[in-house]
Amino acid sequence: MAQNIYDKSEFFAGYSRLPRSVHGLDGAPEWPAIRALLPSFAGKRIVDLGCGFGWFTRWASAHGAIHVLGLDLSENMIARAKADTHDPAIEYRIVDLEQVELQGAAFDFAYSSLAFHYIEDFVRLMKSVHHALVPGAQLVFSIEHPIYMAATKPGWIVDENGHRTWPVDSYSIEGRRTTDWLADGVIKYHRTIATTLNTLVGAGFAIRHVQEFAPTADQIADAPDLAEELERPMMLIVSAGR
Amino acid sequence: MAQNIYDKSEFFAGYSRLPRSVHGLDGAPEWPAIRALLPSFAGKRIVDLGCGFGWFTRWASAHGAIHVLGLDLSENMIARAKADTHDPAIEYRIVDLEQVELQGAAFDFAYSSLAFHYIEDFVRLMKSVHHALVPGAQLVFSIEHPIYMAATKPGWIVDENGHRTWPVDSYSIEGRRTTDWLADGVIKYHRTIATTLNTLVGAGFAIRHVQEFAPTADQIADAPDLAEELERPMMLIVSAGR
Repeated sequence: MAQNIYDKSEFFAGYSRLPRSVHGLDGAPEWPAIRALLPSFAGKRIVDLGCGFGWFTRWASAHGAIHVLGLDLSENMIARAKADTHDPAIEYRIVDLEQVELQGAAFDFAYSSLAFHYIEDFVRLMKSVHHALVPGAQLVFSIEHPIYMAATKPGWIVDENGHRTWPVDSYSIEGRRTTDWLADGVIKYHRTIATTLNTLVGAGFAIRHVQEFAPTADQIADAPDLAEELERPMMLIVSAGR
Repeated sequence: MAQNIYDKSEFFAGYSRLPRSVHGLDGAPEWPAIRALLPSFAGKRIVDLGCGFGWFTRWASAHGAIHVLGLDLSENMIARAKADTHDPAIEYRIVDLEQVELQGAAFDFAYSSLAFHYIEDFVRLMKSVHHALVPGAQLVFSIEHPIYMAATKPGWIVDENGHRTWPVDSYSIEGRRTTDWLADGVIKYHRTIATTLNTLVGAGFAIRHVQEFAPTADQIADAPDLAEELERPMMLIVSAGR
């Protein structure tokens, strides 16, 4: 079973205060880049793997999806998603993505935002998602970038001239990483970019587009702190075809 | 026109002393990983983009290829390749890959070892290679890994405890990088992993396998210095289908 960090009160309280929790999709700087990869949702059946507060499920329904299934391990998050949603096209379930069983050929689109790096058995999950999609369907997901996640001590190193670098180590050593983010002992699973992409190909997906999120000049003008995201990739976004 | 660094006497002399120049394919630690991605060469027509001293062209011919075209910008390298090769199945040409014009559907396999990061117009080159391959053909290439290449100051940072990290910066800022390796002022072109893969997809290729070279335990036992290659990826290897 996956660690249920989102139901730790300290983590949940911190997460609930993040801009992406308060402002939804528009509070996530990577959202415009993700949105550009999305097909028309008109008439589509969609599964959202790690739906959190349900921002994307509501957006998908508002943009024409006829059924949106939101899955999350966190009881807290599903409770709030349900409370914030009044839409018969949307269904929420508390599900551990490590063990999820999805109906075959039941969806036209699969989505996941910053959830897969909490999953240990990515091979199993990608096979399940492939099975759940109809031929011609698409999967779009984001994860913490492996370069961001690999480091033993993830944090900028600033030299005597103020020059900032991101310290990469242990990149080829895959597996569990324990970090302190919002709460102590958050467990994530580092996989290289190669493993991530080869797992998709092995499950039967075709890689359509890869994006390593970098802010636009306009985004940096609005939020100068985002400039550091040009130095090292923080998020990996992948679009794959079934 | 691409920089012809291999014909600078200082660079050529240094390059000629590298293990991969003295011992050929077996002197390159990534060769077993690349070899594992190669199909049978029996009856194949092969183009080697940036063939250097011709080690791979000779290997391909010895493994059944019926025609191997080796292309390189360096007169020095092609001269030595010709002097070392006595094989009617192999042809060498001095060609700038920035401007190469390849015959359509003339090859069953394309190969390139550590050459594409010297190329500024990767889009043009990938379109040319796609055009030169028959349907069902394969492209396998290696480049310096973008994480290795992005850094303003590529070199390990060792902290007071002896802990070694690789300093990443400027990752999302693509384009020219000038480094001093074997000679001063070696020009390379940094592209993100995303750009590299999206360029292949845009040219019509399907991504089959991605590998970020890491030494095996046996390789590290034989050559302990290779252990540092586990910390950050130095080479990116891609297999793509036409």
